[in-house]
This record gives sequence, structure tokens and C-alpha cells, in this order.
Amino acid sequence: MDTPRILDVIASPADLKVLTNDELAILAHEIRQEIVATTSVTGGHVASSLGAVDIIVALESLLTMPKDRVVFDVGHQSYAHKLLTGRRDTFKSLRTYGGISGFTKPTESPFDVHFSGHASDSLSIATGLAKARQLKGTDEKVVALIGDASLAGGMAFEALNYMGNEQLPLVIILNDNEMSISRNVGALMKHLGNIRANNHYREAREGLQEAMETCGPVARGLLSFGRNMKESFKQMVIPHSMIFEALGIVCTHPVDGHNIAELRDILSLVLEMDGPALVHVVTRKGEGYEPARRDPERFHGTGPYDIATGAARKGRAAHPTYTEVFGAALADEAAHDENVVAITAAMTGGTGLKTFAREFPARFVDVGIAEEQAVGMAAGLAFGGKKPVVALYSTFMQRAVDQMIIDVSLAEANVVFALDRAGLVGDDGPTHHGTFDMVYTRMVPHMRVLAPSDEAELVHALHTALALPGPVALRYPRGEGAGAPLPERPEMLVEGRARVVREGDDAALLAFGRMVGQAQAAAELLAAEGMSVRVVDMRWVKPLDEEAIAAAAATGAVVTVEEGVVAGGAGQGVLEVLARQRSQARAITLGIPDAFVTQGPVSQLFADLGLDGEGIAATVRSALA
Amino acid sequence: MDTPRILDVIASPADLKVLTNDELAILAHEIRQEIVATTSVTGGHVASSLGAVDIIVALESLLTMPKDRVVFDVGHQSYAHKLLTGRRDTFKSLRTYGGISGFTKPTESPFDVHFSGHASDSLSIATGLAKARQLKGTDEKVVALIGDASLAGGMAFEALNYMGNEQLPLVIILNDNEMSISRNVGALMKHLGNIRANNHYREAREGLQEAMETCGPVARGLLSFGRNMKESFKQMVIPHSMIFEALGIVCTHPVDGHNIAELRDILSLVLEMDGPALVHVVTRKGEGYEPARRDPERFHGTGPYDIATGAARKGRAAHPTYTEVFGAALADEAAHDENVVAITAAMTGGTGLKTFAREFPARFVDVGIAEEQAVGMAAGLAFGGKKPVVALYSTFMQRAVDQMIIDVSLAEANVVFALDRAGLVGDDGPTHHGTFDMVYTRMVPHMRVLAPSDEAELVHALHTALALPGPVALRYPRGEGAGAPLPERPEMLVEGRARVVREGDDAALLAFGRMVGQAQAAAELLAAEGMSVRVVDMRWVKPLDEEAIAAAAATGAVVTVEEGVVAGGAGQGVLEVLARQRSQARAITLGIPDAFVTQGPVSQLFADLGLDGEGIAATVRSALA
Repeated sequence: MDTPRILDVIASPADLKVLTNDELAILAHEIRQEIVATTSVTGGHVASSLGAVDIIVALESLLTMPKDRVVFDVGHQSYAHKLLTGRRDTFKSLRTYGGISGFTKPTESPFDVHFSGHASDSLSIATGLAKARQLKGTDEKVVALIGDASLAGGMAFEALNYMGNEQLPLVIILNDNEMSISRNVGALMKHLGNIRANNHYREAREGLQEAMETCGPVARGLLSFGRNMKESFKQMVIPHSMIFEALGIVCTHPVDGHNIAELRDILSLVLEMDGPALVHVVTRKGEGYEPARRDPERFHGTGPYDIATGAARKGRAAHPTYTEVFGAALADEAAHDENVVAITAAMTGGTGLKTFAREFPARFVDVGIAEEQAVGMAAGLAFGGKKPVVALYSTFMQRAVDQMIIDVSLAEANVVFALDRAGLVGDDGPTHHGTFDMVYTRMVPHMRVLAPSDEAELVHALHTALALPGPVALRYPRGEGAGAPLPERPEMLVEGRARVVREGDDAALLAFGRMVGQAQAAAELLAAEGMSVRVVDMRWVKPLDEEAIAAAAATGAVVTVEEGVVAGGAGQGVLEVLARQRSQARAITLGIPDAFVTQGPVSQLFADLGLDGEGIAATVRSALA
Repeated sequence: MDTPRILDVIASPADLKVLTNDELAILAHEIRQEIVATTSVTGGHVASSLGAVDIIVALESLLTMPKDRVVFDVGHQSYAHKLLTGRRDTFKSLRTYGGISGFTKPTESPFDVHFSGHASDSLSIATGLAKARQLKGTDEKVVALIGDASLAGGMAFEALNYMGNEQLPLVIILNDNEMSISRNVGALMKHLGNIRANNHYREAREGLQEAMETCGPVARGLLSFGRNMKESFKQMVIPHSMIFEALGIVCTHPVDGHNIAELRDILSLVLEMDGPALVHVVTRKGEGYEPARRDPERFHGTGPYDIATGAARKGRAAHPTYTEVFGAALADEAAHDENVVAITAAMTGGTGLKTFAREFPARFVDVGIAEEQAVGMAAGLAFGGKKPVVALYSTFMQRAVDQMIIDVSLAEANVVFALDRAGLVGDDGPTHHGTFDMVYTRMVPHMRVLAPSDEAELVHALHTALALPGPVALRYPRGEGAGAPLPERPEMLVEGRARVVREGDDAALLAFGRMVGQAQAAAELLAAEGMSVRVVDMRWVKPLDEEAIAAAAATGAVVTVEEGVVAGGAGQGVLEVLARQRSQARAITLGIPDAFVTQGPVSQLFADLGLDGEGIAATVRSALA
């Protein structure tokens, strides 16, 4: 960066107001360079962030921020926003421990509205902001920026249904990049595709009237502003916006999301409307960086990479990931049982299902970002005699807790919940850590819950879950396995039976999932001090092995260790068993305390939380003191 | 019933096939009489069940059941189905202890697909059944019957989006009764209203072609059957079905839902299609019973009533309900604080918000059956400086667990969750008991959880929740209060402070919410035996009063009592505190065991679960033995 950059003089979006469209375009270019420079070191959501640069520059040049509110759906596309709102100098710390978040985060900046990260919530947040404005009688603008994939989520539809009815003035920018995380799914996407196919981009300055042609008699919102708009609207502009129009939301023709002048023209009009309006913007993921343009899926979320080639910098991991092992194991199971069906919600690659999808396309279902549908459909498949495996990230399973309880578990349906990224996920931070699933699964009657401690155990756990009748959840972490040799054949685990992985009598560590490894490290440390500590791989969060717990109570202390919140977690289940056994044992529950966990390397977070070998050993020492 | 009834010879839907349309209409009349006769004694969902009789009779006369599958959304409209599928003789036990369920229930009949009760899940279940059929290569029909209000739920949209894309053959019967539980909300409802206004009913035999006119180029599903259908479809039939059409779902004009001949004609056509199709049926709630026609809202869910007049049979309750007290208290709070906003999700009357809605219409929000939107919008309102109170039934709050975690609690937003019908609800049974909320609220960082023990405590709890920054949940039961005198002014409760309501040293009962009353009854019983038992109203599920727990541990036994599942509940939180205190006290956690709870009078269920005074006393005796 030898030449002076426009970016370097932007302290806040207010500074954008003096810039010309050409200067803004140069700024957008600089932002893209900055995003690539930083993410090539830190990793991050590159493709979507690059795709949204021009929208953000154009939009924020028109707003008075932070008074005006921009709600970023998912927030992984917000990097340009961060660079424009006082975080240029800290941007290099993106997604690092102590650094700035990869998503919007109100505790990081007053320019950020909400903790984004979970899709489809931006429209609901925006309706609340707009309603608050109405009650206060203020005049701030409310804008939501949402991708096409996020519109598939039912929460987004609920918000559209509400805002259309109430005619709340707010602007939705639909960032239509023709691609969700993996492949497009859903009729709505096809609908958007038809719109793109049937509409040429309009030249904004020539065709604004046309671009703002709305879609039917309900489009009252348009009537408020006095530029050169037609007073009468065409009865119907097909096929581009029937859904939104039917819901009472004014919508534009598709506009070029990489033309800042066009974007500013249409946005400046739409921002003056007094009803809900949707601007349909077409963008290209990875725009401005060729490797990301070529392979936007890989650059959706990437680790560090070489800028020149786009090649990943990190060497191949020593061990396969849990995700990979799961994917291969499920494909094996499917080869032996034609009733196995895999369901995911826009996480095909993320949950390791690409092989399955290739080998068993008829038995693979991707419902899009729609976890409620994933679980409800799984119940229906089970009622139809199939054995569905719903593979989701733990944190997104939170979206379908009710369906897990009512549709699946009350009916004792044969549904397996494969919860990937359970526990701490690292750089994505608090919205993505999977720290609640042991609580909300074990509270549910008929549910069994497995927490495999390594990748070999994962293979057995999956096999067991598929063989058992009724609902079963298995939870396993993000990232590399422990290096355990994979079994030739999966084994059926005995329900509710733990296994002792290290003998000892001074204390007992009852560990769940990946924490077994940390517990073993603690036992090693303590052994060096002359203490003999038992390590038990509990295997099952539910049902708990009451014999193993009784045996642990006969040592000097029982310490439970879990990668999830303590409140309501497996450790408290162990306390319950001890109470029923009238045990007098000293017992301690280790896990995630009553606070959201920040971003950073998982090993660092474990250390901070006292969940690494050293931390666990310290707990045992104090328990025996 | 002196004359022989057709209904008495119907053993299963197969027996409907020999009946003429006129005979089916007579049967429908008999079914209505039976529904009124039974619900006048048992109470039940009268208006919706009466409205759906003709649809069910017409549909099931065309199907081969139970091979063909009918998925009832919510299921409160399924009484006619129950009467036709082998439950005529047991129908009089509707909603009673040991009797048949007010919803569909697969363990009750092979003709019931799923445990219905939670809205908007039928379409997802149906997609699963249709996908299973596709994989098996079988030919059973799959039909979902869903009301207009349920379509507002995001889960239903997710299913529409999926089925339209996949073109799964299944039939949706949209039972458009122009009314949700309280008032219609949402743009989709308006859309349906426009359709009704713009379309006369078509005479089925004359106008089938028109009625089946579809809505655009995506309507490929129609091409499969060879009756006298046009091969070409009109490009657009506006405005009736743009949303469904855009999603790839063929749909009909509105048809008269009380004309069995018409219904059979159109259904017999639609059942032969090989893509998703929606039949838009217009019905009248309460059809065939004048009192229910006049006041469908009261007859949505009613207690026993006089058949001749429709008047409620039950005398006025001795005490106001928790719901009523909450509604009045919230209106009082709103009168003193203009920032208070009330949000519900189609439960205005059920959550006691009618007064609030009348007095503060601008600050009252009903989002329809859309809990995710309710909570997401609440977050936005809080970000805009408001103090939203989200009033939902505990069991439906399960639909928005993720929003509570991510959108509200992570942001420490000032949102109050008022969870009505927490604990056991009685006749509605397992889908409606609110037994999980203490678990899924207390697991969340930043969340505080109050469980008022009577209606006076509820007033204080609400006041406290509104005064505290950050998220707070309060949970209170369905039904009459304990008769506690209501306070003149609400008081601010000290966070995390319990109150001793009865002194005693032999044992301590740490009770939550309504269980305080049961604990006091137990203490009375034990006092008669010479035992001195302390009763503590814990008031707070989170944070727990650690001093009160330590003091309790100094007695002979600590027994926690809660109206919620033990697994992950408040009692296990108490065990955690005791463990941290290195207590050696005998401790027992009473609550809902790891099983779904059946329907019946709450007092009966308490007795079964050992949660009445006698059961709790027995536990104390055994603890001290």
C-alpha cells in the first residue's frame, strides 16, 4: 500500500458523503484488497464479503450512522462495514483471539445492531427497530441486508408476513448471489432464478421508473415520495416478485450489485418510502478476487491462503476431521441399509455429506437454511419407515428444539440427530459454539444422547444410534480427530455403558466427548505428582452409566468434565445420580460456565475455561486438598 | 338418538365408500351432533372441529386408510376423523384422564400419523411421508389439512419451499376459516382474504376446469391425469394464488368447505396429481351449531357448556387466573412506563393481553402463529430502546429457543419472556404441558428466571423483570391462582433471594412456583406426624439463592420440588450449588420424570407424579428414614 488510500481517511460512513461515485468505486476496490490481505492471513468468509462490498459502500454513503440502522443477516458479509465504521486498524485481528469478530457484534461497535451469525433473523430484528421508531416518533432508517439463501428460513418468512401486513417502513436489500453455502435449494430460489432469467438489468438512471415498478395493488408504500415516479403502478410485473407483492412488500427489478452509481440511485429512492420495500440486488460471490470468483464455495469460509493462487496455506491435517469420519461412516451405513436417509440444512459440505450425496442422491435431502423443516421432515420419513439422520451444526439445531421434542421424540420416531461442531468451534465465536446441545437433548424424554470421545468412537456411536429404536442424538466437535485408528467394522455400543480408559483410585474424572482426551492429559500430569486418577469415557450423556458413577464415588473425588454449559448439563445429571445413590462423594462439575465464550483457538479457550489438562488437574488437586 | 344413525355403522373410513353424497351429508350432521353432545360435557375445540367435519367426511370417503395418510395440523379439528376411525365408542372420554386425546395421537390409533398440537408442522411431516413413499415406490396418498392461521408459521413456509422445489406429490387442504385463535394477522391472511373477495365459489361439477386452473408456468403437476382438464393453463389467475404458484404449488380457486359433493369432486381430482397441490377450502368455524357460529372465539377451546344456549356450565372460578392477573399487571406497568410493549403470537386472549391490546393498541403486537418472529422482533424493539414483553405459552416458546439465546440473551437485550401455562396444563396433554422451560431458560447466559408461587408473586415478578436490565423469563401456570390477595403496588424482588414461607428443621422443601403450595400441604401433613419441615419459596430458578440452599442443607434433608422435568431443571441446579458448598446433605430432586405426561386434571397428574402434598410428604419421610 504505497499510494495513499481513500480507505485510510474514512473514520466513519459520514466521510463517504463527500465522495463521488468514481471515488466510492475506488474505495470499494481498496476494501476488497484489504479483505483479501487480512483473510489470507486470518481466514474468514471471503466470497460473501467480497460480493457485498459495493452494496455496503453505496448504502452507507447514503445513511447517517449509527443513527440509521443496518441489520446484517448472518453478518459474514459485513467486513466492508467493519472497515468503514472505525475498525480499519483492528481489522487485521479479524477472527483472532481478542480480535474483532467475523460477524457484527454490538459490543464491538455502536455501528453494529445485533450479534449476527444465525441466518434469517435480520428481518425480524428490523421489524422491531421499525416498530420502536414508530412508537418513538423518530426518523432513523432501518435496513436489512439478507442473502437469498437466508430467505428460505421460516423466520424470515414470518417477518415478511408481519411487515407486509403492518406496512412498516423498512428496506430489505436482497443480496441475490445465486448460491447458498453449498447448492441452491428451495422453490424460492428457483423463483429468484426465474426473475433473473426474465429480467435484464436496468440502467438505473434511464430506467428508474421501470426498476421501481411494483407488483400490484398493495404497493401503497411507494406513494410517498415525489420524484419522477409514476403514480400508477402496473398491475403485474411477472414473474419477478409475486411472493413479495402478495405479502404487501414493494420490490424492484434486479439491479447490478456491483454498480455503485446504480445502487445509490435506487437506494436513495427506496430509503424514502413509507412502507416495506425490497431491493433485489444481484451480486457475484468473490467479486474482485479471481480465485474466490472461481471457487466461491471454498472461499465461503476459508483458512489462510496464498493471495496469488488462492491455495490454502495450511498443510493437510494430521488426522481426518470428525466431520469427514462421520460422512464416510454414514455412507458406509447407507450402503448396508437402504432405509438410511441423510438430511441437512444448507450444510452439506460442513457436515461431511458430499460423499453421501454423490453415492446416494435419492436418499440425500438438503432443505436449505430451514432446520425446522429438516427435523419435521425427518419425523415424516421415520413415520414412513425410513431411518433419517439429520446432520446439523449443534448451534443451528437450536432452531428446531420444539420439533425435536414434539414431532420426533414424543412420537418415539427413529430419527438420528448428528450434531457436528458440538462444543467450542474456535474463530467463529459465541454465535457458533455448540455449548447447549447436551442440555436441550437430555431434557427430552425418549431421547438418548451419545458423545463420542474420538473419531473411532464416533463410528461406533453412529452405528449404535442407527440400530436403536427411537430418537438418538450424537454430538461431536469441529476439527481434527484425536488420531484414533478407525475400526474395520462399527460396533454396537451397550446403551448407557461407559468405559474406563485409565484406572486410578485417588479421584475419578468422568469425561464426555472430546474432554476424555483433556482428562487423560490431566491424569498424566497428576500421575507425575503421585496421584492415581481414573479417567472414564462416559460415552453416553443419556442414559448415564450409574455403575460407573457409583464406582467413581468410591474414589476421593468425582470430577465431571464436559464441553458444554454446566447449567443443566451432563455433570448435573451425574450429581443427580450421586444424590439418588445417597453418595457422600466430593463432586465437581467442570464445563462451560454461565457466560458466552469468545472466539479464539480452541486450545486457548480450553485453557481459559480450565478445561485443558492443566486446568482439570488443578481442579482435582483442589478437590483432594 | 332414537333413530338409527349412519355413524353407528361406520367402523372405519372404508365404510364411507358405499354412501351417497346425501348420505355423507347426513353423516356429517350426525357427527356434528356427536361432537356437540360430547364437548358439552368434556369441553374441547368445538368451533374448528365443527368447521372441518365436511372436509374430513369427503376426504376420508375417497381414501384407503390407514394406508393413505392424513396429517392434521394442530389436530384440534380432528374430532370427525376420530369418530370415523374406530373411536366412536370412546369419544365420550375426549380429553379426560385415561380417555382419548383432543389431538391426533398415533399411540391411540393407527389412523393418526403424528402427535399434533403444535401448529404448522403438518406440511413438513407430509413432505417426509411423501419422500419415504418415493423411496419405497409405494402409492399411498399423503394429505395435510392445515388452517389459514397455521400457514403463518415459518415451518410451514419452509415445507412449502421444499415441496415446491422437489415437486413431491402431496395434497394440502387449506382450511380457510377466516380466523385464527384470536384475530387474523399477517399479510398472508390478507392475501387469502383478497382471494376470497375476488372469487365466487365455483360450482364444482360445472366449473372444475376453472377451479383447477392453475397459476402459472410451473404448474407441471397437473399434467398427469386424463380427465376433462385443459392441457393449457392460464398464465395467471390473479390474485388468488401467487405465493403458492411462485413456489411451484398448484392451487385451486376457493371451494365451499361445507358442500360434500363439491369437495369430493375436487379432491378426487387433486388426489391423482403427481406434484404438490393445494385445495383452498373456505369453511365457517362452528358450522352446524348456532352458538359456536355466533361466537367462534369462545368456542375455539371451551369448557363444558349448555347445548341449548351455549352458555358455559362451569361457575365462575373462586380466584382470578394467573393469566388474568398477568394481563392486568402488565397493563398497569404499561400505564407507568411508555416503553413497555407487549408481543404475542396468536395467543392474545390466552395470555391475558386483551385489556392491554385495548388500552395500548399501538404498543400491542400480535405476530400470528410465529414465535420466532415474536422473539426476534422483541430483540429489535429492545435495540430500539423499548421494553418488550413476549407473552407465550411455555410449550410454544420451544419454537424460539435459538432466538432467545442468540438474538436476545447474547445481546443482553431488555426482553421479558412471560411464559404462561408453564407446568402441567391438564386436558390438552403432552403436547401442551410446559415442562421444559426451566431447563432451556436457565442454560442461557445472562438470563434470569423467576417462578412466582402465587398470583401476588406474579405481580412482583413481572415488575422485577421489567426493572432489571437484560433478559428475564417468568413462568407461571395455567388456571386459577392460589387466592393470594393482590398487592396494591408491585414490589421489586431482590435478585436471587428466596423467602422462607414455613420454618422447620427436620427437612427443607425448596419449592419453585406453584409447587410451593404443594410443599406447604406436605409440611402440614408431616407436622401432624411431629416433623418440622421448612418450606422455601425459591422465587428464582436463576440465580439460585445459595444462602437459602446452605441453610436448607443444615436440616436433615433437602428436597427440591419443581413443576418441570428433573433432567437439567432447577433441582439439579440446587445439587450443583450443594456440591460447590461441599455439602454432605441428603438431597432429592422432585419434578417431572423422564417421560411425557398424559392428559387429565392437574391434581390427578400431581398425585400420579408424587408432586401433591401426600407424594412430597412420602418423599420426605423416606429421605429421613
